[in-house]
Amino acid sequence: MSSIYNSAPCAYEFPLLIKQLLNRAKTVSQEQEIVYADKMRFTYAEFFTRINRLANVLADLNLAAGDVVAVMDWDSHRYLEAYFAVPMSQYILQTVNVRLSPDKVLYTINHAKPKVLMLNSEFAALVKDYQFENSSIEHIIWLDDNGITVEGVFGDNQNRVTGEYEALLAAADDSFEFADFDENTIATTFYTSGTTGNPKGVFFSHRQLVLHTMAEAASLGMLPNKQGVSYGDVYMPMTPMFHVHAWGFPFTATMTGLKQVYPGRYAPDTLLDLIINEKVSITHCVPTILQMVLKEAQDRNVGFNGLKMIIGGSRLTEGVAKAALAQDIEVYTGYGMSETAPLISLTEFSIDEPAMTEEEDISRRCMSGKPVLMVDAQIWNEKGESVGTGKDHTGELVLRAPWLTQSYFKNQDAGTELWQNGYMHTQDIAYVRPDGYIKITDRLKDVIKSGGEWISSLEIETILSLHPSVADVAVIGVADKQWGERPVALIVLKPDCQETKTDDIKAIAEQAVSKGIIPKYGVPSEFQFVADLPKTSVGKHDKKVMREQYTQQLNAK
Amino acid sequence: MSSIYNSAPCAYEFPLLIKQLLNRAKTVSQEQEIVYADKMRFTYAEFFTRINRLANVLADLNLAAGDVVAVMDWDSHRYLEAYFAVPMSQYILQTVNVRLSPDKVLYTINHAKPKVLMLNSEFAALVKDYQFENSSIEHIIWLDDNGITVEGVFGDNQNRVTGEYEALLAAADDSFEFADFDENTIATTFYTSGTTGNPKGVFFSHRQLVLHTMAEAASLGMLPNKQGVSYGDVYMPMTPMFHVHAWGFPFTATMTGLKQVYPGRYAPDTLLDLIINEKVSITHCVPTILQMVLKEAQDRNVGFNGLKMIIGGSRLTEGVAKAALAQDIEVYTGYGMSETAPLISLTEFSIDEPAMTEEEDISRRCMSGKPVLMVDAQIWNEKGESVGTGKDHTGELVLRAPWLTQSYFKNQDAGTELWQNGYMHTQDIAYVRPDGYIKITDRLKDVIKSGGEWISSLEIETILSLHPSVADVAVIGVADKQWGERPVALIVLKPDCQETKTDDIKAIAEQAVSKGIIPKYGVPSEFQFVADLPKTSVGKHDKKVMREQYTQQLNAK
Repeated sequence: MSSIYNSAPCAYEFPLLIKQLLNRAKTVSQEQEIVYADKMRFTYAEFFTRINRLANVLADLNLAAGDVVAVMDWDSHRYLEAYFAVPMSQYILQTVNVRLSPDKVLYTINHAKPKVLMLNSEFAALVKDYQFENSSIEHIIWLDDNGITVEGVFGDNQNRVTGEYEALLAAADDSFEFADFDENTIATTFYTSGTTGNPKGVFFSHRQLVLHTMAEAASLGMLPNKQGVSYGDVYMPMTPMFHVHAWGFPFTATMTGLKQVYPGRYAPDTLLDLIINEKVSITHCVPTILQMVLKEAQDRNVGFNGLKMIIGGSRLTEGVAKAALAQDIEVYTGYGMSETAPLISLTEFSIDEPAMTEEEDISRRCMSGKPVLMVDAQIWNEKGESVGTGKDHTGELVLRAPWLTQSYFKNQDAGTELWQNGYMHTQDIAYVRPDGYIKITDRLKDVIKSGGEWISSLEIETILSLHPSVADVAVIGVADKQWGERPVALIVLKPDCQETKTDDIKAIAEQAVSKGIIPKYGVPSEFQFVADLPKTSVGKHDKKVMREQYTQQLNAK
Repeated sequence: MSSIYNSAPCAYEFPLLIKQLLNRAKTVSQEQEIVYADKMRFTYAEFFTRINRLANVLADLNLAAGDVVAVMDWDSHRYLEAYFAVPMSQYILQTVNVRLSPDKVLYTINHAKPKVLMLNSEFAALVKDYQFENSSIEHIIWLDDNGITVEGVFGDNQNRVTGEYEALLAAADDSFEFADFDENTIATTFYTSGTTGNPKGVFFSHRQLVLHTMAEAASLGMLPNKQGVSYGDVYMPMTPMFHVHAWGFPFTATMTGLKQVYPGRYAPDTLLDLIINEKVSITHCVPTILQMVLKEAQDRNVGFNGLKMIIGGSRLTEGVAKAALAQDIEVYTGYGMSETAPLISLTEFSIDEPAMTEEEDISRRCMSGKPVLMVDAQIWNEKGESVGTGKDHTGELVLRAPWLTQSYFKNQDAGTELWQNGYMHTQDIAYVRPDGYIKITDRLKDVIKSGGEWISSLEIETILSLHPSVADVAVIGVADKQWGERPVALIVLKPDCQETKTDDIKAIAEQAVSKGIIPKYGVPSEFQFVADLPKTSVGKHDKKVMREQYTQQLNAK
């Protein structure tokens, strides 16, 4: 017999659609709360109704399946509603990265060609002129918390503005039947903030997002209460909703029926107020935001009551981890990228923890974690062969998982390189420890090749960051006639340590050599003090700019 | 544009195949343990190799994709290996219910037509003669823990016996490349132990089992450590592996990389020894097994150290729950059935529990739980309309979930009724409380209709079970000229309470009437003391037999 089965006539095949994520919450979580900063709060029961209303608003705009609906907003209840109503209506949700430079923001809009733009009035100036050009945008839905009127920004040229969000919802019917359709339908798209060339769009199908949500719930659920997610947790994002679905958490929290808090624009005082007042127990962010809230809490002399916090997007350093733990934040690492929806790996904790020192504990929190459920993570050498575990087997981290972008949005050619030989190439250089921890040693493009040997810039940075005077540090590779490339360290000193000499910093690198931690050629050839380090829109070190600036500086000599 | 995407040329689509469940464990859990009673223990590293070896043994048998490989075994490492190697090789795993009567066991084999039988020597007598008939079985793999030889049972007629399991594995190659194929390929089949007619086979695809595993991991993961599953837990089944995939736990535990313990044939002393010695922290069983281990532990004067235990298959009564909690078992309820793979709902616990009395706590543990993630559970009235929540909206529980059998195995017609109007019919009468708890009030076929009103036999049983003399009780509906049907209570008294009179029992029912808990017509017309109550092969009350016996008894008068 064939092993592909015959179904009963009316059997329901259950396509993996985003609407199905609501099933449990609809039965169980009607009374649960959703909070928008200090501006609004309502129950899931109302949330379900509001999704229906938004779907009716969109249905009135005569869109076709597959049309793009873009959102430019801070983290809000509106964004959450769009996460569901837009893809559930078979449109594609574009989450616009409003932190990009204005011309790149417009580039991403021009490229994805949304027909509808849900526009927070704070960003209206950015698209003020744009809207009247030859743009794809036929409808603007006005989002506003500050009493800024359409007239005030657009004057008489309001013909594309459909109305204000809350008013439109209030006027719309509160019931909507969401149809079934192919689970491989694209649900979302957004653009990577890559430092080279134009941003590239990734895209994810309903099936992929449902599977990501289930795997995220399972992977965080399997962690002990102290670090993982359980029924009873309160969720707030501190990685923006335009950035890789805020780590997928709005979907996960909704499926699970958790109380959710959306903070609007990230301001340290607002974030801390909400954490305290709404009893937020789980969040995620980049180290920069963590440092902001740590400082805010220090100034107010308050603790975080065991707040669980997943750091991703930029490396969590041992120093920052230690500071966070001291202020009662259960901080650890998640690894992922735009192309991976994003969850790939998480720090592991167990209810049966092996004995470890504080140093070992902090060290594991700062690695890239162990692969989450279903993820096939391998290290490949330059020939594209899978190598074993251990530091001696360093190579490129390549991935398979049920939720990786299958190409780039409207840019299929760019996907070919991404998916060479059937695995997704992260361009991260890493090794996998025998216990399963992934240790990223560098970005493929940042790796320094000196005398034929690879030098991990991240490793050198970690060592230099241990010097008490160092506030921030980056190690870049610069061209060298003799060695091909040599490492150069760019160092930001702490305000009260401006007297430190470069030789003091160099000493710590040499100490690491004498202890056998790094090879001799790993000691940077040059140590430069700088006022600050160039960063990308998401707060990562922008080494491309650093290398350019260094070269300019050399040429200027 | 179309919203169905174009993939990059080499992009990996990631079919949801059972082999993918191993991904994380392969990276993370190589050193973790799998234990077979006191007979064998090995690491996951070896387990992965053994799966490859078993696949090579099967590959030598010249089977075709879709052929059935049946297993007759107690819970063992061999069974776990078959859970993976058989479907991963694109064969269908038939888990034979060895607790059925011999002719029904043979019926299920005759119906599924396996080409290979993995046969524990303890069951060899059952198929001794059968193997030489005109059966589908071409190959028998001999499983043995007791030194029973093939010769000893089959004599000279061994031509279909391929060899002994461990010897075959030892001789096989230790590497195997498992191919990709359609995720809708059937992975498993087994037969329901229904009390009417012949057993019916349900079947589940790779996709369904992967989704069940992910949802089970997420749903149990979301429970607090005290009740749910976390990294560091130790798993042992006490619902057999031939019974609905042992609740899917062997898949879930393997995906998560937990230490696993397989106890062989269920004997109370062995089970308790393993719980204590192997530090088992999570299990599942029917109430009968729970009572067996409770008694064993009482006799030995040992506790269970917070063992987490999900009860399913038969109702957990408040009395048994209380006894289990007193012996330090975190007992609660899971609801499901053969057709549902099985997980549908679980008791909810939260890290932010509302205040409740001990009685309320026990009560929620004994309900059928709240729907797990992704499950769409509705109550339908007799017209097939979805009704609201609350006791006033009692009807049939119908379901959608990504892992429900899509029909019956090689018996498609039987699936039509199961899937009437696009939802799976459980034949359970229930209501859903506003907080999402499902309260099963009866089986559709056991519900008692007296004077046009429904009487819940389960509700009356619960009340009568509160009498201190009652060891077990069943309430059945018997034909009545005046009322259509009337309830009759069959009661097993505790050994030391044989002096109790039927009027003593009746008094507690009348008290419930006076308190408004049940209607007056809910008081059984008759109370009979019996020595024991007929049970099905899986330990449930067999009300069909009870009704037959009662009728025979009336006719005999």
